[in-house]
Amino acid sequence: MQLTFLGTGTSVGIPVIGCDCAVCRSTDPKDKRLRSSVYIQTPEFAWVVDTGPDFRAQCLRENIRHLDAAIFTHPHMDHLTGFDELRRFTVDVDQFMPIYGTPECLAVLERMFEYAFNGENRYRGYLKPFPKPIHGPFHLGETTVTPLPVQHGKVVTIGYLFTRGGRKLCAYIPDAKTISPEAMELIRGVDTLIVDALRHTPHPTHMNFEESLAVVSELKPRQTWFTHLQCEIMHAVEDPKLPPGVNLAFDGLQLRWNDEG
Amino acid sequence: MQLTFLGTGTSVGIPVIGCDCAVCRSTDPKDKRLRSSVYIQTPEFAWVVDTGPDFRAQCLRENIRHLDAAIFTHPHMDHLTGFDELRRFTVDVDQFMPIYGTPECLAVLERMFEYAFNGENRYRGYLKPFPKPIHGPFHLGETTVTPLPVQHGKVVTIGYLFTRGGRKLCAYIPDAKTISPEAMELIRGVDTLIVDALRHTPHPTHMNFEESLAVVSELKPRQTWFTHLQCEIMHAVEDPKLPPGVNLAFDGLQLRWNDEG
Repeated sequence: MQLTFLGTGTSVGIPVIGCDCAVCRSTDPKDKRLRSSVYIQTPEFAWVVDTGPDFRAQCLRENIRHLDAAIFTHPHMDHLTGFDELRRFTVDVDQFMPIYGTPECLAVLERMFEYAFNGENRYRGYLKPFPKPIHGPFHLGETTVTPLPVQHGKVVTIGYLFTRGGRKLCAYIPDAKTISPEAMELIRGVDTLIVDALRHTPHPTHMNFEESLAVVSELKPRQTWFTHLQCEIMHAVEDPKLPPGVNLAFDGLQLRWNDEG
Repeated sequence: MQLTFLGTGTSVGIPVIGCDCAVCRSTDPKDKRLRSSVYIQTPEFAWVVDTGPDFRAQCLRENIRHLDAAIFTHPHMDHLTGFDELRRFTVDVDQFMPIYGTPECLAVLERMFEYAFNGENRYRGYLKPFPKPIHGPFHLGETTVTPLPVQHGKVVTIGYLFTRGGRKLCAYIPDAKTISPEAMELIRGVDTLIVDALRHTPHPTHMNFEESLAVVSELKPRQTWFTHLQCEIMHAVEDPKLPPGVNLAFDGLQLRWNDEG
């Protein structure tokens, strides 16, 4: 399995429009953060987690040519508004794109992109989504995908655990303030944790570094990557200060697991 | 008055995801086309026409720091999905952003971005739109804005004529298959025409070069810029072939009118 970080930023991306802070003016590519999303490839199946506003730019940057499904964490704009760009992955094959999310999340997508769901427009170039409401673990190819409900302020968002051949390869939790004991149990023993770590300062709906490091201390994954980073965080300054095995993710970073043997 | 082309491309942008044509592989910056939009500045007021998927990238590229209003041509995704990015222009001033469009267009925005309109969320960082349904000419500062209903396949879209000091400076019509005699009368005598000209090949909902050139022949504006260009059109090849006074627009192009005297 291979994972590519399409974006590692907050809802407004970095640089932030109109912001003159040192990170927003930084020329370090690792300080350029599009909205949080990952692209996962396995030998038999490829999918994206969330289609935020930067989805087209992310596909072009990473030369993404193939997509079998899209899965969604929650219906906030920074995870949804690139939804229509999915059409490029169905135009030539005239097939439907499976989209996985909670019934509540799919309802928001259906409200926002009503023309794609109403069955009236079957023009070849238009997006044809196939809603797949999630109620528990499901499979994408040979990967078991376990939804991880986590608290994100007043709302629940879904993190995802990806398991292959019985090995918990990766948990991806981009938007969380707290991770429930139940979710912690599900991901215990995970090889790689990718987790919301907005900044140092506390925030009402996101974990800060201190809170995320507490999760790392309890789970002790082999490696941890912080994501959904705000412009308070300069990569070159903050990454070296993190404990061993914990790093800041950045756009374009690729992770690989040797899980085919 | 000054106009900046934020984007000059079709609904999928150029390069197109997964397309290997010569234009999508071109390294000429004039062949990179984000979704169609323009930013207009006058001494007293600044606005954008449409907030498509690339709105954040366009604001960053052009270093847009100030926006007094957004006006919309029609509720297709390539003109709307960047709507939430408008929040960066109200966050520091705690004011509402006037948004102008037909009642039908505003209804789609309200359905898609319901959280911004429902009056429940007044968190400082969130978008606070102020819907302004259009039923005829209106004013943005000292500019008179005349809606130009035009046919775009089965739907009507709104082009806009911008008049200052009695001079018809510019008509912007990015999505049209035909321009009605009534709209032609409104824009007769315009200095600058910016008009949909998708490609050479005919299309059911957009004017091709031949159709757009027929409009130019009738109106005889001082200058004409073709926009909403598909990847069939390579700038360096096609621009020199156009008649005098007619050119292909490109992202970042700025037009100025000396209308303050």
